[in-house]
Amino acid sequence: MASTRIREARERDCADILRMIRELAEYEQLSHQVKISEEALRADGFGENPFFHCLVAEVVPASGELQGQGIGTKIIKKVAEVALQKGCSQVRLAVLDWNKKAMDLYKSLGAQDLTEAEGWRSFRFEEEAMKEMAGC
Amino acid sequence: MASTRIREARERDCADILRMIRELAEYEQLSHQVKISEEALRADGFGENPFFHCLVAEVVPASGELQGQGIGTKIIKKVAEVALQKGCSQVRLAVLDWNKKAMDLYKSLGAQDLTEAEGWRSFRFEEEAMKEMAGC
Repeated sequence: MASTRIREARERDCADILRMIRELAEYEQLSHQVKISEEALRADGFGENPFFHCLVAEVVPASGELQGQGIGTKIIKKVAEVALQKGCSQVRLAVLDWNKKAMDLYKSLGAQDLTEAEGWRSFRFEEEAMKEMAGC
Repeated sequence: MASTRIREARERDCADILRMIRELAEYEQLSHQVKISEEALRADGFGENPFFHCLVAEVVPASGELQGQGIGTKIIKKVAEVALQKGCSQVRLAVLDWNKKAMDLYKSLGAQDLTEAEGWRSFRFEEEAMKEMAGC
């Protein structure tokens, strides 16, 4: 098994975080939606009242292959632990419907598919629509 | 038309906010999921680093009927304005698939149904699953 340490992200991780955001978006076939810069990540995550919190997994792989080493499971478990510490009563995740591997993992850990079970849909206003609404 | 003033919520609005959360949940047939107390709303929304921000619409209806007066539209427009001020690049909403009235409103204001367009599903871990994962 890989040796894994999960810790809170630091500001100097932002270059790596951005790289992984881009790698994930590529996998999701949504690269065109990644508009954030390293500078914006720093400002949003590491100022006062940060917009996001982030955990980083430092991994020393046992083999060259990172998949199937249980790293995703370890991170989700850590997220659950932190969420409980902060007083959260739920953890929500967004997942693409063709990403069966991710959905199977979340379900195996006890998650419910709310879109299937209750009919929840996700709607998005992008910047242009927001500006139109705000009268900018 | 109704006369509407939209303002930031204050801590003393929490009793009314909780009442409206319950009324919405009743409409959504999800009343059993409302577990939050007024005390928790106060703690989560009005301490340091609040978990949520809230706008309140104060309405003087022109007639007894509140629906169809454009109050929802005014609130969403205000949300867009505040989001732009804070540097957000998107606004996301969750909506139940049978709530055609809400979906039509969001679409008419320029929102995209991400579940339909890109296949996004919403997953939820509840407290029991979180505790299991965290090893509590």
